[in-house]
Amino acid sequence: MRVDPAALDQLLHPTLDPAASRDVLTIGLPASPGAASGHVAFTADEAEARAKEGEAVILVRVETSPEDIHGMHAARGILTARGGMTSHAAVVARGMGRPCVSGAGALRVDVKTGEMTVGGRTIRRGEMITIDGSTGEVMAGHVPTLKAELSGDFAQLMAWADRARTMAVRTNADTPHDTETARGFGAEGIGLCRTEHMFFDGDRIIAVRQMILAEDEAGRRRALETLLPHQRQDFAEIFHIMRGLPVTIRLLDPPLHEFLPREEKEFAEVAAVMQVNPEHLRRRALELTEANPMLGHRGCRLGIAYPEIYEMQARAIFEAALHVGEQSGETIIPEIMIPLVSTVAELAFLKERIDAVAEIVFEEKETRLTYLVGTMIELPRAAITANEIAGKADFFSFGTNDLTQTTFGISRDDAGGFMPLYIDYGILSRDPFVSIDQTGVGELVRMGAERGRSTKAEIKLGICGEHGGDPASIHFCHGVGLDYVSCSPYRVPIARLAAAQAALEAKAALEGGKA
Amino acid sequence: MRVDPAALDQLLHPTLDPAASRDVLTIGLPASPGAASGHVAFTADEAEARAKEGEAVILVRVETSPEDIHGMHAARGILTARGGMTSHAAVVARGMGRPCVSGAGALRVDVKTGEMTVGGRTIRRGEMITIDGSTGEVMAGHVPTLKAELSGDFAQLMAWADRARTMAVRTNADTPHDTETARGFGAEGIGLCRTEHMFFDGDRIIAVRQMILAEDEAGRRRALETLLPHQRQDFAEIFHIMRGLPVTIRLLDPPLHEFLPREEKEFAEVAAVMQVNPEHLRRRALELTEANPMLGHRGCRLGIAYPEIYEMQARAIFEAALHVGEQSGETIIPEIMIPLVSTVAELAFLKERIDAVAEIVFEEKETRLTYLVGTMIELPRAAITANEIAGKADFFSFGTNDLTQTTFGISRDDAGGFMPLYIDYGILSRDPFVSIDQTGVGELVRMGAERGRSTKAEIKLGICGEHGGDPASIHFCHGVGLDYVSCSPYRVPIARLAAAQAALEAKAALEGGKA
Repeated sequence: MRVDPAALDQLLHPTLDPAASRDVLTIGLPASPGAASGHVAFTADEAEARAKEGEAVILVRVETSPEDIHGMHAARGILTARGGMTSHAAVVARGMGRPCVSGAGALRVDVKTGEMTVGGRTIRRGEMITIDGSTGEVMAGHVPTLKAELSGDFAQLMAWADRARTMAVRTNADTPHDTETARGFGAEGIGLCRTEHMFFDGDRIIAVRQMILAEDEAGRRRALETLLPHQRQDFAEIFHIMRGLPVTIRLLDPPLHEFLPREEKEFAEVAAVMQVNPEHLRRRALELTEANPMLGHRGCRLGIAYPEIYEMQARAIFEAALHVGEQSGETIIPEIMIPLVSTVAELAFLKERIDAVAEIVFEEKETRLTYLVGTMIELPRAAITANEIAGKADFFSFGTNDLTQTTFGISRDDAGGFMPLYIDYGILSRDPFVSIDQTGVGELVRMGAERGRSTKAEIKLGICGEHGGDPASIHFCHGVGLDYVSCSPYRVPIARLAAAQAALEAKAALEGGKA
Repeated sequence: MRVDPAALDQLLHPTLDPAASRDVLTIGLPASPGAASGHVAFTADEAEARAKEGEAVILVRVETSPEDIHGMHAARGILTARGGMTSHAAVVARGMGRPCVSGAGALRVDVKTGEMTVGGRTIRRGEMITIDGSTGEVMAGHVPTLKAELSGDFAQLMAWADRARTMAVRTNADTPHDTETARGFGAEGIGLCRTEHMFFDGDRIIAVRQMILAEDEAGRRRALETLLPHQRQDFAEIFHIMRGLPVTIRLLDPPLHEFLPREEKEFAEVAAVMQVNPEHLRRRALELTEANPMLGHRGCRLGIAYPEIYEMQARAIFEAALHVGEQSGETIIPEIMIPLVSTVAELAFLKERIDAVAEIVFEEKETRLTYLVGTMIELPRAAITANEIAGKADFFSFGTNDLTQTTFGISRDDAGGFMPLYIDYGILSRDPFVSIDQTGVGELVRMGAERGRSTKAEIKLGICGEHGGDPASIHFCHGVGLDYVSCSPYRVPIARLAAAQAALEAKAALEGGKA
């Protein structure tokens, strides 16, 4: 009880040598802990190329998008001029365990000239900088770091925590690497395996774009067929690493325009690779543009408009699970999760199609397996009607990122203009994207849990928003009676300790009450 | 009880002569009732210019924005290729009583060449078309219409309705013309006077843009000073027309980027008018761009970041109310409404500033008046924490448009991609932006009303979303015990009848229960 779970974060990452001098250029948000030095690269491709030559690289972007993933993997650390604690860069970096400073607003990045300016100073491509993702500091030059050392004491602490806690701790992971890291940190399964990043890798993005450009369902199915073996392989690797433990896979969530190019010059490039008319590509991208993508044609709305996408994903999951189960001799129980449900009718519509795919695959393979179909509870209406939705769901996973966005009516990506002011003025005591807002968002979680259980007492309840790794939020989840929390790999030890402390406190309170 | 309130809509607007032949080009959404013929104009400026020469005009746009208002006023009817029943075009047209067909997806509009194509046919600028906003039909050429005739029977029906109903009926109006129309239709006050359209008129947009480009608060205050007399005049006219009845004014709501140009070529034009560097304008527009404007830096978040905007508006309201009160000898009780509140701290912060402005104005003018400060309840968190918010609010107005968007996580502007499918498949029985979703959104309204009254029994409760003019939603509002509904001017008679029927049904049920 005397160890602050948040302090573990420092233990798991390299820190700056306190004796070294620092030439601080600016301070951004401490988006992902740890310190790193490297040569500046302004594009993901450049980061990857430099890293291949053995250079340490810091990837510097105005903000990152899923197309930057390979550069983020290649880099030692990530620095962005825009974006909050839950921006793409921050979330992905925490998942990877890469240090990240986000929202360094004083930074001006000019990709064309290959330089960035900050406080009147200019840093050119290839120059060395150091970032400290635990404090938000950005420094010129190389500052020496001290490596993290995990001692036997750490394992002892974790063993004590595991004995005390009642909630399981899972991880949010969508790559074999993250899955392995998380299992190493003691994750008891995957609570959220996103599938969208898988659609960007290598040649797959071409097939995804062919699907989006297809004129009809037959065209889409042809494109999806080329994705199927890749998707099956993705799941097989993850099932294999997590064998014996539950894996929750969320079907495709983002709006389709996220997979198309945005910049004028990209249309020609992409069209050439795809051998299509650039005008056709541009027109389709324009058609799919949305005023508010967060509230747009995404999540289960995609699955309903294009059932063939979710059918392909379901097939890949069943085929991979059967294959790994057979090879490893362990039972694989996939949990298929439908995103952005607002009414039970959406879930019923999609569950029927997933069950039909399962039957087809089981017949083809002449074997069966147990699987679950559940849903995210990430919209206020889903929490309010959880009693109806539970009738069709084997589990709920509270997606508290989107639930916070919709309950407050605040876009994470756009909160930078007023959130710092809100904290300064004391209008909010903490950023609700970092620690759950117990009064508002928390009441919907409580309502969702109660109403869900009123229909189906045994329904499995978890949380997979960023809050799953925040100690205060984990206390809240224990109080609501959730079965598990799920967080990014490097937060798993924190969550194990926080869950233990929540259980011990509740027990002490109960015994205090009895006495 | 035998008259369908929705049927009144037909009575109030011109209809197509059923004997005339029709050359139907396509069918869009019946966004605002009534039929109109006119020459096609593809820009607001063109519509206005043609109308000045005495031509009947139909304004045809891909979609409309606040900058098209003058063209919509000038036109006999409005046709858009994109946008749903609650798109900008639809909402504004209903308010104006202009026929409108929106979301005619088969239409391709090319402003540059000045033509539109539909089903292989081309209609050029200046050619005649006819639209029927009650059915969604778009026809080539001129189709004769029959004028609406309101008989004494109509007045008799309204008199019966007024005797039976218990809820007041107000209107959503922000121009003298709409206010006059609504009062003529029997509106008992204004439930929602938006202030953003006032910022676009004539030269004002220049001052608004100067404010946005200002480097500091002093610069913003200078620009706001030039807006003050206009804003005061706006309110004075509306107070005068509605004298003796309550007027609820909503302080500025949309994000600031809505007032800046978007298109590349506009930057140069606007910069020349403003005598600023186009690069500066472009950079500021880029800085203000948001990923999800609906969930962005808008509503009270603007008022908190730039208190001087709301202070100017509050001063204009108080000065106008005192002036009109003195001139007319009637008491003017302005109701100042804060948009997009999610926590009581926001309301407390802004109410304190509004009260301070009131004291300054009262001292300057050596006289006082009674005023109310209240809030929209349009975010799930506001409904959930209504007991806290009521402590600082004299009234609540349920903003069910935004509440529907956030509760479902659906952007009205982007729903076109899946909403028709949802209705087709029976996933939703009705478009929740047209008729309130009683299970989900309605539960939040009920919760907001109950929790608000638990803190302050006498708090005044109303609704000002589009649902305020929908008979089924009005029944729901009666059931929840709201004090009034507010709807667009042409829906006021419908709301009066629907409110009466709701009251009579409730009474019959109660008497049935007793018997």
